Amino acid sequence: MLPNYDTITALATAPGKAAIAVIRISGKEAFPVIEKIFRKKNKPVCFTQIDSHTVHLGTLVDADTIIDEVLITAFKSPNSFTGEDIIEISCHGSPFIIQKIIKLLLNNGIRTANPGEFTLRAFLNGKMDLSQAEAVADLIASSSEAAHQLALNQMKGGVSKAIGLLRDELIGFASLIELELDFSEEDIEFADRKQLELTIERTLNRIQMLIHSFETGNAIRNGIPVVIAGRPNSGKSTLLNNLLQDERAIVSPIAGTTRDTIEEEMIFDGIRVRFIDTAGIRHAKDEIEKIGVERTLEKIKQARIVIYLFDMNEMTVDEVEHEIQSLKSSASAHTEFITCANKSDLVSEDIKKKFQSLNGLFISAKYEKGIEELKRKLSEPFLLGIKEAGPLVITNSRHYEALIQTKASLEAALQGLKDHRSHDLIAADLRHALNQLGLIAGTITTENLLDHIFSHFCIGK
Amino acid sequence: MLPNYDTITALATAPGKAAIAVIRISGKEAFPVIEKIFRKKNKPVCFTQIDSHTVHLGTLVDADTIIDEVLITAFKSPNSFTGEDIIEISCHGSPFIIQKIIKLLLNNGIRTANPGEFTLRAFLNGKMDLSQAEAVADLIASSSEAAHQLALNQMKGGVSKAIGLLRDELIGFASLIELELDFSEEDIEFADRKQLELTIERTLNRIQMLIHSFETGNAIRNGIPVVIAGRPNSGKSTLLNNLLQDERAIVSPIAGTTRDTIEEEMIFDGIRVRFIDTAGIRHAKDEIEKIGVERTLEKIKQARIVIYLFDMNEMTVDEVEHEIQSLKSSASAHTEFITCANKSDLVSEDIKKKFQSLNGLFISAKYEKGIEELKRKLSEPFLLGIKEAGPLVITNSRHYEALIQTKASLEAALQGLKDHRSHDLIAADLRHALNQLGLIAGTITTENLLDHIFSHFCIGK
Repeated sequence: MLPNYDTITALATAPGKAAIAVIRISGKEAFPVIEKIFRKKNKPVCFTQIDSHTVHLGTLVDADTIIDEVLITAFKSPNSFTGEDIIEISCHGSPFIIQKIIKLLLNNGIRTANPGEFTLRAFLNGKMDLSQAEAVADLIASSSEAAHQLALNQMKGGVSKAIGLLRDELIGFASLIELELDFSEEDIEFADRKQLELTIERTLNRIQMLIHSFETGNAIRNGIPVVIAGRPNSGKSTLLNNLLQDERAIVSPIAGTTRDTIEEEMIFDGIRVRFIDTAGIRHAKDEIEKIGVERTLEKIKQARIVIYLFDMNEMTVDEVEHEIQSLKSSASAHTEFITCANKSDLVSEDIKKKFQSLNGLFISAKYEKGIEELKRKLSEPFLLGIKEAGPLVITNSRHYEALIQTKASLEAALQGLKDHRSHDLIAADLRHALNQLGLIAGTITTENLLDHIFSHFCIGK
Repeated sequence: MLPNYDTITALATAPGKAAIAVIRISGKEAFPVIEKIFRKKNKPVCFTQIDSHTVHLGTLVDADTIIDEVLITAFKSPNSFTGEDIIEISCHGSPFIIQKIIKLLLNNGIRTANPGEFTLRAFLNGKMDLSQAEAVADLIASSSEAAHQLALNQMKGGVSKAIGLLRDELIGFASLIELELDFSEEDIEFADRKQLELTIERTLNRIQMLIHSFETGNAIRNGIPVVIAGRPNSGKSTLLNNLLQDERAIVSPIAGTTRDTIEEEMIFDGIRVRFIDTAGIRHAKDEIEKIGVERTLEKIKQARIVIYLFDMNEMTVDEVEHEIQSLKSSASAHTEFITCANKSDLVSEDIKKKFQSLNGLFISAKYEKGIEELKRKLSEPFLLGIKEAGPLVITNSRHYEALIQTKASLEAALQGLKDHRSHDLIAADLRHALNQLGLIAGTITTENLLDHIFSHFCIGK
């Protein structure tokens, strides 16, 4: 038996003029209301008597006035997206008509849905868990092949399943510990301590892998921030234009990608790369230049990869090493540096040999030499990261937080076991870890959590 | 047997991120291609064996890669919008996914549809006539109640049916005349000339009514252009703001209405009114002011209604009459003038009496007096026009042109009959008239005509 929610409606397709638009209704009143306002060959249709997943051509009427010729699709509970009775109205894609139809539905006691409310119902009615629901929003927002595949996998329940397995294993031991608590005065040990230690260690390993996968997952979901750094005239703009050349056409048709301060985006091998603009780096001679350098260093802090570009005619190996070292001190610990020796078309083989020790790439931004190799270097670690993590990549920062918490609790429990601490302390740590894991799939939820998650959805989903 | 067109596809919903998007496929290859790329519970579905108008949940796959979880709706020929087999793919509303699915369809030999091509097929396959097809585009574009109702009526075949009846009547007589031509040497008269004259006169009357209805129809479809004219400080802006006050909220949510030079739009009683901005009128003292006045007069030429506003404290009846007369000389013959005596709150009854002879409205723009009456005056003639014309209102300028041509040919035929001209001249005139009427419903078409009509549709319709 489903909870008795009220009936909601929303435009499910993008707003604007188009051939068709789809308006969705979910809830107990979906069928009764549509029976009132829909006519097939001038006759009402009894939707409770028709088959689920069937489509019906007819007209929507408001009293005697025809509003539009429409197709009505009926999905019967529980075989629908939300688990409730669903009606989808496919009408002509006129904003005026859409407005009229929604008004008509509201006049019949249906209310407009909040963002994500259809998916929230799907979750509340047990059609999907929380992590799958979140993946629906990610799927709609994804704009690269890799992000799309990760969201699809999460939607199909990959992440929840893995977390569920870890949780099941811990639950077994946790309940034994809890049992011991009940008999604590008798000092009986139901749980095999050695076994429990091993289980926790194994779980910790898996969780560590998932935490690690977030680095890849987050970069894939939000795009990999890349800074091209180097002295003025080292060829930064030429390189950027070169990298973007063929790719821009692929990125531009994808609407709605936020850019903020990001200058350019492109997709290599299905991985989205965001280039963050920087001014050239050099020793600041005045206040204004100092600010420019500071900003560059600020941006390097946000970068996942820094491409350090230099002109082989202008710098010595020592200077390059020194400059990279000073940039690294500004960067975060996991930032990768790719050194690119530019203008390889202009220098002799002897000079190139000098720079061999830097272990970088030799490129010519101007003549497009070495660009393919650079692209490969940009996307390779992430492709490898996906491959290593298998289908289990954490992309959601909420999941990441929960895993970090789980890890801390499990480590405390493990230490407790080793230190022969009392049952109740270990039990509390395990409970906390289980709670945190439960939050990911929504086995455990709070109202705040649901509000927070679903308010980020688009309306109609 | 339907003509063997190739298979076409397009996004049918508006572009942009949304809960869902619908991609349409029409043609012989729709079912075979979807069978290749769609899996229901990991198994292919034989679409030729399933019922028409049914919906199927499953995944779209490109080789082994899942692209999205989708709903597939199948419409079997001839019971579909185009008359061909149609597949509608309802996918997640991500621009990235939409792009991927369309690419997959293209790789399977389906091509992207041209604007209006689905509706063109519906016409070519005899699912609707040309005037109905045109109404589909009008329906999507309509942004007021009246325009929406006219488009719906035209889509349901109202206009074509009326034209068809007129045509049938003429065809009877025309064929008798043609028969006489065959026997011309024997000087036999098959057609009763008096009867033919009466038929043509009756038809001419009906056509005149339709032509007349275009004035209403065109104004309703495109909005009624209204100019508020008057001297500076007569209260024009206050009046405009007052008129717009409650209505703006109704107009603004309708996206995609083109505004061009139009300042403001509102809808009264389902009729869309477009206010065209003007500078105040006064005797030009210098070159620049002269240009302002010229522009105002230019705009008055485009107006269907001119609201002439004056301040009763500032002008005499003679001055007002003189000014209206001079504006009328700039306006087109069918432009209506509504005289509004403003600031009725500030003047005595005695002064008001003086202006009674103008047959205008007494208003107070500032205190919102008389505004409702003015609104009624704006929409009334059009509501009356719709009422008089019944459901037969011509909104399409192509139909209007054809009717004007028909009228000219019928008048020539009538004159020929009265002047006892030879059979072949009269027959030629009747043929021309029949041709023109045939163009409206598309009984007679040319390729240019079809290209012209359907290129104005949105893609996916």
